[in-house]
Amino acid sequence: MPKATNIKPYAGLVSIEDRCKLLNQKGATIWFTGISGSGKSTIATTLEKALLEQEIFSYLLDSDNVRTGINQDLGFSEKDRKENIRRIGEIAKLFVEVGFIVLSSFISPYKVDRDNLRRLHEDANLRFFEVFVDCSLVEAERRDPKGLYRKARKGEIKGFTGIDHPYEAPVSADLILRTDQLTLEEEIAMVLSYLKSKEVIGSQYLNPSNSLNTQADKVRS
Amino acid sequence: MPKATNIKPYAGLVSIEDRCKLLNQKGATIWFTGISGSGKSTIATTLEKALLEQEIFSYLLDSDNVRTGINQDLGFSEKDRKENIRRIGEIAKLFVEVGFIVLSSFISPYKVDRDNLRRLHEDANLRFFEVFVDCSLVEAERRDPKGLYRKARKGEIKGFTGIDHPYEAPVSADLILRTDQLTLEEEIAMVLSYLKSKEVIGSQYLNPSNSLNTQADKVRS
Repeated sequence: MPKATNIKPYAGLVSIEDRCKLLNQKGATIWFTGISGSGKSTIATTLEKALLEQEIFSYLLDSDNVRTGINQDLGFSEKDRKENIRRIGEIAKLFVEVGFIVLSSFISPYKVDRDNLRRLHEDANLRFFEVFVDCSLVEAERRDPKGLYRKARKGEIKGFTGIDHPYEAPVSADLILRTDQLTLEEEIAMVLSYLKSKEVIGSQYLNPSNSLNTQADKVRS
Repeated sequence: MPKATNIKPYAGLVSIEDRCKLLNQKGATIWFTGISGSGKSTIATTLEKALLEQEIFSYLLDSDNVRTGINQDLGFSEKDRKENIRRIGEIAKLFVEVGFIVLSSFISPYKVDRDNLRRLHEDANLRFFEVFVDCSLVEAERRDPKGLYRKARKGEIKGFTGIDHPYEAPVSADLILRTDQLTLEEEIAMVLSYLKSKEVIGSQYLNPSNSLNTQADKVRS
């Protein structure tokens, strides 16, 4: 339950629609979930660059930038993991409200937390897509890009997802990427194709007859 | 001290410079501080609209949208107030990293917290400007737009800034707005003029000889 009282909902002079028109795109959160080493961050960083090259505004929220900043007070207990994901969802929502395509790359092991993120967005009429970066534990552990599985097996890291901490796989993901069977190029192509099919990319937002510029022109003339 | 370990600093494929070039502006945080009723939110919301009309991307972080979202778990104790401001600073930094002009409207009563915000930005080579929205307590209490001073005087709200909670006025603000002596129009004009003098607005970021578009054109040709 919210602790803060005497707070009214936000009511600025600029609407979400105004912002999206200025940016000429509509925001969405693309939430990549999967175990460590599944390829989430590789896909998300590559996708971020691909979108930039198409002049599409996107922003990557990643364990590595969020954990060292706003969530530096949180560890890896169940409670802290939940709070980590909750806050990231709220940050993602703020970026979506200005029209950005948010790419989130977090293990996010609990189904209920991911469902809450979807609800948070959908309740505000914002788009949320869950992408399951599906890789077998055997393959993720073989890759072990950060050497974390090795440490977890030795007991040097406690509560490691897939080893001594659960990962609840999505049951109704919007898109599944079998990263132990696909190349990175295939994965990126699948995501881009999916985002096009959902009109997240490839359909400009601007409606010239009703745009802010046109309104401003009218005022000026 | 950070609790999260095994975290490396963010190193995506897209730099802050790339993002700012795409948006064609450089980010900055404009931090409005002042007591309740001083006029912070009125100035910030009006400014946000003025910037939008000039097609400048800005985003208002405000008690009312942040407190109902990411910081809904925080109350108004000294500890919670500090955490509120810390998180907002980190969110502001993320928006500045994509090139946005962040307008923050929070009482932010403690000097040390505001100094930390400045350091957070400057350590990352990002711009931060503190604007003191300076209004006498007598005048703010006379205005009492939300009826909060009346409640605080009756003891219905505890820990209210200016009544039974301290406000540490800035000693080296970048800009001071005496809102008990100026009109809103004058205040907005002063902020816009200041932002122009600091090249936060009015100087396009794009360097055509080195832009992403030009690079992309080269690749295409």
